[in-house]
Formats: sequence, structure tokens, C-alpha cells
Amino acid sequence: MTYCVALRLDRGLVFAADTRTNAGVDNIAQYRKLHFWRQPGDRVVVLLSAGNLAITQSVVSYLNEQLATPDASTPTLFTVPSMYRAARLVGETVREVRRQDGAALEMTKAGFSASFILGGQIGTERPRLFQIYSEGNFIEATDDTPFLQIGEHKYGKPILDRVARPEMRLGEAAKLILLSFDSTLRSNLSVGMPLDILIYERDTLDVRREKRIEQDDEYFRKLSMAWSDALRTAFASIDEFKI
Amino acid sequence: MTYCVALRLDRGLVFAADTRTNAGVDNIAQYRKLHFWRQPGDRVVVLLSAGNLAITQSVVSYLNEQLATPDASTPTLFTVPSMYRAARLVGETVREVRRQDGAALEMTKAGFSASFILGGQIGTERPRLFQIYSEGNFIEATDDTPFLQIGEHKYGKPILDRVARPEMRLGEAAKLILLSFDSTLRSNLSVGMPLDILIYERDTLDVRREKRIEQDDEYFRKLSMAWSDALRTAFASIDEFKI
Repeated sequence: MTYCVALRLDRGLVFAADTRTNAGVDNIAQYRKLHFWRQPGDRVVVLLSAGNLAITQSVVSYLNEQLATPDASTPTLFTVPSMYRAARLVGETVREVRRQDGAALEMTKAGFSASFILGGQIGTERPRLFQIYSEGNFIEATDDTPFLQIGEHKYGKPILDRVARPEMRLGEAAKLILLSFDSTLRSNLSVGMPLDILIYERDTLDVRREKRIEQDDEYFRKLSMAWSDALRTAFASIDEFKI
Repeated sequence: MTYCVALRLDRGLVFAADTRTNAGVDNIAQYRKLHFWRQPGDRVVVLLSAGNLAITQSVVSYLNEQLATPDASTPTLFTVPSMYRAARLVGETVREVRRQDGAALEMTKAGFSASFILGGQIGTERPRLFQIYSEGNFIEATDDTPFLQIGEHKYGKPILDRVARPEMRLGEAAKLILLSFDSTLRSNLSVGMPLDILIYERDTLDVRREKRIEQDDEYFRKLSMAWSDALRTAFASIDEFKI
């Protein structure tokens, strides 16, 4: 599995992804699932991926090929005029990979399984965030539910449901995302460290805050311990159940 | 779906189950999934069920039929000498239902899906807790992992992973179980109020504390609000992430 989550805030976007892939619990490996493209001053596009690694890597390879051999008649991540068009482009690319590999995959138990979170800012448009399905269609995050998750999303959802708000500061949102990861990592072996995190500040049109958080990261370790302590304190502060 | 959870503690056992069943989000209903049998002074046996309602109801009906028409050659929940034998009996009953309905169910997408948590105390044996699979085999809870969950278990697992300990008081454990339900109810429509909760105190060999918790239950409402407040306070108390 995999866990990826992103938040759309008034002040920008925050993205995070783990790096574990597995084909059974006895075959795990480390692969980057957070990718980004930028043209400083013009655009930043970030893509998180979950599902079949062969499919998601093919999608990224196609997107990079389009950029390497541009052709005026075909849009690329550097020429699309809006994030909506970027989501359409990624969706079309997923469909292209399905045309190539879908039939072979559908004959197996694995099937054609892949999902993506795409976010970023192009020009003066506000930052936007999309979730793209394996069918190539997509939804967009709004203020009602400012986060999107793909992969192993259940363990880390209760804290997001309670705390996520569009008005959050970016550092606060990054803390929330890391707590959501902490709950997931504790409960599910298919999600593993290190994590990649990217904080995009609105209107900067560049990637300035991006980090790989390793197993021994000091902040993450403290966060995890402080959260466990805080939860136990919170638990103790509530009256016991009586019948 | 369904959510059921039980804890095996030094002081006894705590069980809880929701009451929602659904066949699609447009067809939900309320059914009891916590059942118990008792012979005061001799034994208490509690069964929680998840999965296909036709299967789980059949299992309960079979167990009750055995009790209504006892036959010296066939064990029943009132004659088995230990909780291990009770788990074997329930497992055999699941296999009996599979012999009857399995083939028809396996021809459909639904398949033969059912799982159970069985716990209780017989005589002087310590209280024991088992999880029984649709194949009729089972595992037993131990001090390393004192809780068992069936159904929609992921949302409510992080809090159990962090807080559950065999030394807990029974009222503390009931509070923990209700918090685990609170997280699940917020995130998943297929789990719904009211809840049934049963607290079994070791060596009482009777059911003295059992309650249906309705939507408007005062304690549950306060618990849910206090927990949201405590989580937000805990969240605010931790340093923000910086890069």
C-alpha cells in the first residue's frame, strides 16, 4: 500500500507521501511517490501517487517525455493554462497507460489500480488540489473538506476530520499531516518511513520548502512521543464510563 | 459494515458492538450484534458478530437450537467445559452454516463473509477472548495485544494501539472502547448508533452491567465533545513543523 495526503489552505498547499512499496509483506522496497515540476515565477505542480508502481511510474515517465520533447500541438505540464487543465492532462496520461497495460493487468487479480493527488499553482490562479482516479477522472478539494488522501487512508483520517481547517498556518498543517502519518505508520506495515513533505506557500510560484523525513528525524520522533503523551493525558482527563 | 471490539483485562472483559447493517448506503437497518448467554454462578458467554447478517443470524439460531433441544451427545454453550471448547463449538457452527449456504454465496460477489468475537468465563477458568473467522478457526487475545476488533476496524485502532493495557479498570476500558467507536462513527457511515456495551467483571459469572447507548446518550455526547476538545488542545500544545 502507500499513504499520501495533501491539504488545500488559504495560505497554500501541503503535501506528504511515504516511500514504501510492497508486493506482499515479504517484499518491500523504497520508492519516491512525491514528484514535482516547477518553472519559477510561472508554476509549481506536485503529484503524489498510490497503487501499482509500474502504472504510477509510467504516468510520471509519460509526463516527463512530453516535457523533454515538446510539440506545439500537445499540452504539457509546462504549457497547460490552469491546474484544471493539468488534472485533465494527468487523467489523459493515466488513460494512455491503461490503453497500453490495462488489458494485461485486468486479466490478473491485481487489476489496473492507481490513484493520484495533483496540486499546485499556475500564474495568478489560486492554488488548487485534485484527486485523480484510475479511470482518469477527478475531484477537486474545497473548503468543506480541505484534505485529500490516497492509499491506506483510514487510520490517519480521524485526526484530519477533527482538526483540518482552511485557515491553518502552513507549519500547523504540516504538523497535522505528520500526526496523520504517525497513526498510520503505527497501525499498518505497508506504510513506511522515510516520508517526503512539501510545503507550498501561495503566490511564491517556486518550491522552497521540501524535505525527506528519515526514520531518526528529531522533530518527527518528538512529535510522535508528544502526541502519545498528549493522547494519554487527554484520555485520563475524561470521566470513566459507569453503568 | 459493522464495528465490534472487545478487551481482555486482568479485571474482566468489555464488549461493544454497533447496530447498523447495510446493503448499500441506501439500505440501512438496525440489528443487534451483541448476544450473550448465561448460567449464573457457572458461566457467561458473549458473542459479537460482523459480516453477512444472514450468516451471523443463522449461527446464533443454531447455537440457540442446540440449547433448546439438548442432546447428550452434542455439546452446547451450556455444556462445553471451557471457553476454548466454546470457540470450537461456534467455529463448527460457522462451518455448518457454510455447508448449508456457502456454495450459493460463493457464486456471488458477496461470498461467504462473517466474523465473530467470542468471550466469557466458564467456572474457575480465567475470562478468555477469541476471534473466530469465517473458516471456523480462531485466535485468542493475550496480554501483548489485549483487544480484538472485527468489521470496520481501522479508524478506531490508533487509540486502542496507544492506550489499551491489561491493567486498565473496567470503566476506563469502556471509555476507551467508546472513544474508538467515536472515531469510527465520525468517519464511516456504515457504522451507526445505537451501540450495545457489556462489561463483565471477573469471577461474577453473571451479566450485571449491560446497556444500549442511544444517539442522545448524555455520557456519550459529553465523551465525544470532551475528546474533540482534548485532541485540539493536545494538537495545539505540540511545536509546529519548520523547514
